[in-house]
Amino acid sequence: MKSVSVAEEWFTVRWMNGRLLIMDQRQLPQAESYVVLETLEDVFEAIRTLMVRGAPAIGIVAAWGMALAANQSVAGDTQKLLEELKLARDYVASARPTAVNLSWAVNRMMAKAERSAKDDRATIVLLKNVLIQEAALIQREDEGASRAMGEHLLSLLDKSYGILTHCNAGQLATSRYGTALSPIYVGIEKGKKFHVFVDETRPVLQGSRLTAWELQKLGVDVTLICDNMAAAVMSQHKVDAVIVGADRIAGNGDVANKIGTLGVALLAHHYQIPFYVAAPLSTVDLAVSDGRQIPIEQRSSDEIVKGFGVATAPEGISVYNPAFDVTPHAYISAIVTERGVARRPYSVSLREQMREVNP
Amino acid sequence: MKSVSVAEEWFTVRWMNGRLLIMDQRQLPQAESYVVLETLEDVFEAIRTLMVRGAPAIGIVAAWGMALAANQSVAGDTQKLLEELKLARDYVASARPTAVNLSWAVNRMMAKAERSAKDDRATIVLLKNVLIQEAALIQREDEGASRAMGEHLLSLLDKSYGILTHCNAGQLATSRYGTALSPIYVGIEKGKKFHVFVDETRPVLQGSRLTAWELQKLGVDVTLICDNMAAAVMSQHKVDAVIVGADRIAGNGDVANKIGTLGVALLAHHYQIPFYVAAPLSTVDLAVSDGRQIPIEQRSSDEIVKGFGVATAPEGISVYNPAFDVTPHAYISAIVTERGVARRPYSVSLREQMREVNP
Repeated sequence: MKSVSVAEEWFTVRWMNGRLLIMDQRQLPQAESYVVLETLEDVFEAIRTLMVRGAPAIGIVAAWGMALAANQSVAGDTQKLLEELKLARDYVASARPTAVNLSWAVNRMMAKAERSAKDDRATIVLLKNVLIQEAALIQREDEGASRAMGEHLLSLLDKSYGILTHCNAGQLATSRYGTALSPIYVGIEKGKKFHVFVDETRPVLQGSRLTAWELQKLGVDVTLICDNMAAAVMSQHKVDAVIVGADRIAGNGDVANKIGTLGVALLAHHYQIPFYVAAPLSTVDLAVSDGRQIPIEQRSSDEIVKGFGVATAPEGISVYNPAFDVTPHAYISAIVTERGVARRPYSVSLREQMREVNP
Repeated sequence: MKSVSVAEEWFTVRWMNGRLLIMDQRQLPQAESYVVLETLEDVFEAIRTLMVRGAPAIGIVAAWGMALAANQSVAGDTQKLLEELKLARDYVASARPTAVNLSWAVNRMMAKAERSAKDDRATIVLLKNVLIQEAALIQREDEGASRAMGEHLLSLLDKSYGILTHCNAGQLATSRYGTALSPIYVGIEKGKKFHVFVDETRPVLQGSRLTAWELQKLGVDVTLICDNMAAAVMSQHKVDAVIVGADRIAGNGDVANKIGTLGVALLAHHYQIPFYVAAPLSTVDLAVSDGRQIPIEQRSSDEIVKGFGVATAPEGISVYNPAFDVTPHAYISAIVTERGVARRPYSVSLREQMREVNP
């Protein structure tokens, strides 16, 4: 993995001459620097260490990881290649447990490889090309999905331009436009104005480091707050809608998202502020009937006790550091996907949207 | 102001040979270091820069500041000394606007000086001694009040030993025992066991730097969490009671306390967890009928965007950084003072407790 500089419009992930270029988001907001991923191991490390994060972006990078694994294989026949790809899939899928887009993307790549290999004329070279095309398609589809989410969310925000968001569900978390931030990207194009309150999002500060950065780039009016200030801002009637992304959505509409989302949802509920979740359908996991079954990643205590380089807590203190929490569907006003606006009961509406995709 | 080391049991504030020794809380948890305050200006700076913080501790230190001002005066007569003390009072009272204990303490010192000066036999030396004795009394009374709060709170916690607290309302915020943490200090003496969840309390991290430090010293089972994890911990039924301190309590029971308290109160309300406020009666300000009239101190954006030396947000970003928020009385299960447990309607119960003190 090496760093490179890219002197043009910023981007989250780009395939370039058989290698993958991603922004190293750990360097933001100080530096806009890119890293070249050349192997499956590079991709694994990039996901594990949060160089790239955000459920859709993780899925896209993981898909490209499968393409990289195929491209570099020295397998002598297609069956051997498929076996290698299965190992690659299991390996990358284990990088982080909560976002379902990760396993969704590598499973889709695997299925594509298996279908293509069934053709008698399939060759190793052909399979390698098929996988590159499939990863590119996943990335293009994600961009289209984000664009569509932006349009659908805008239809809900007719008079709601005071927005509060948590974590980063913007362009940095996707191929383009973002999920929660998609209506802002799309709305800006249409001349709409927003005021966005950004939770800094402890412990890793995706809000202050990433969301504030990309909205500032976009020229949006942003106010950064600490997570514990959301209630005060809501109580002052400054927030017309809360919009967040999702890492996994259960069949009943329960949403796993960045730690702190549950609190924001309950506060929005208290203040009768609409609470919207934006995510592509690849985030919905019908294999999980409710949120309690979603595995929650526990991360290192160092993120909390020395997240800023200096020790901010006494040595030896116990820490609880779940990366995500689960918001029960009852507190979610709508789940917005590329197919439209899903309302309660989500067990019906989400299934209907998925049927439209895979009838 | 100079630093000194003190090789015994730690303390928040202590009068010693005409000078005031306070712990420099900005150095915690890395170093337990003390600072000598020798002038009124030292006291002002110590309060303004958060060397000492916590409403009762600010009141005690401000009272000692009045004693210092008197002690160092070269006034030729008692009337001149009173005039100097009035200036001293206004000066110290302006160090921070929200905690009412600050103005309560310096006004009490002033009233004591004025009463004493009315005596024909009053001399400058006598007034100086009277003020030292009054500050010592304020400090002793605070210790007694905290001890009493501990007993009253323990009566509410018979089966509630999973406690969540926000900010620091412990011994570091008072003369001894603390307000919100008083039942833990008193309960430990009686062999009770607690599990305390400590919100780190952004932006200045009084929870992780101070509360976690003093509870660890006390040998209590502590789990440090980020502020945005409180909802997750509550949803897992790990919290039996929330206890916080207060910086000012309005006549109707609305409570101004560290930013984030409002959110914790609303989440506790949602999960039907008792939410207790602990504060000495000197925190109640009957001149303020409801919380909307309490002035809220706005602090520097640097506390949020570079609170730990490194920039954690893009340059030039707008920030909202109120030091406090106001929790409406409807979400407070009880306000516990040295006089007992006040319940709704607080406009009645708080006045009754205050009448017992000043009938």
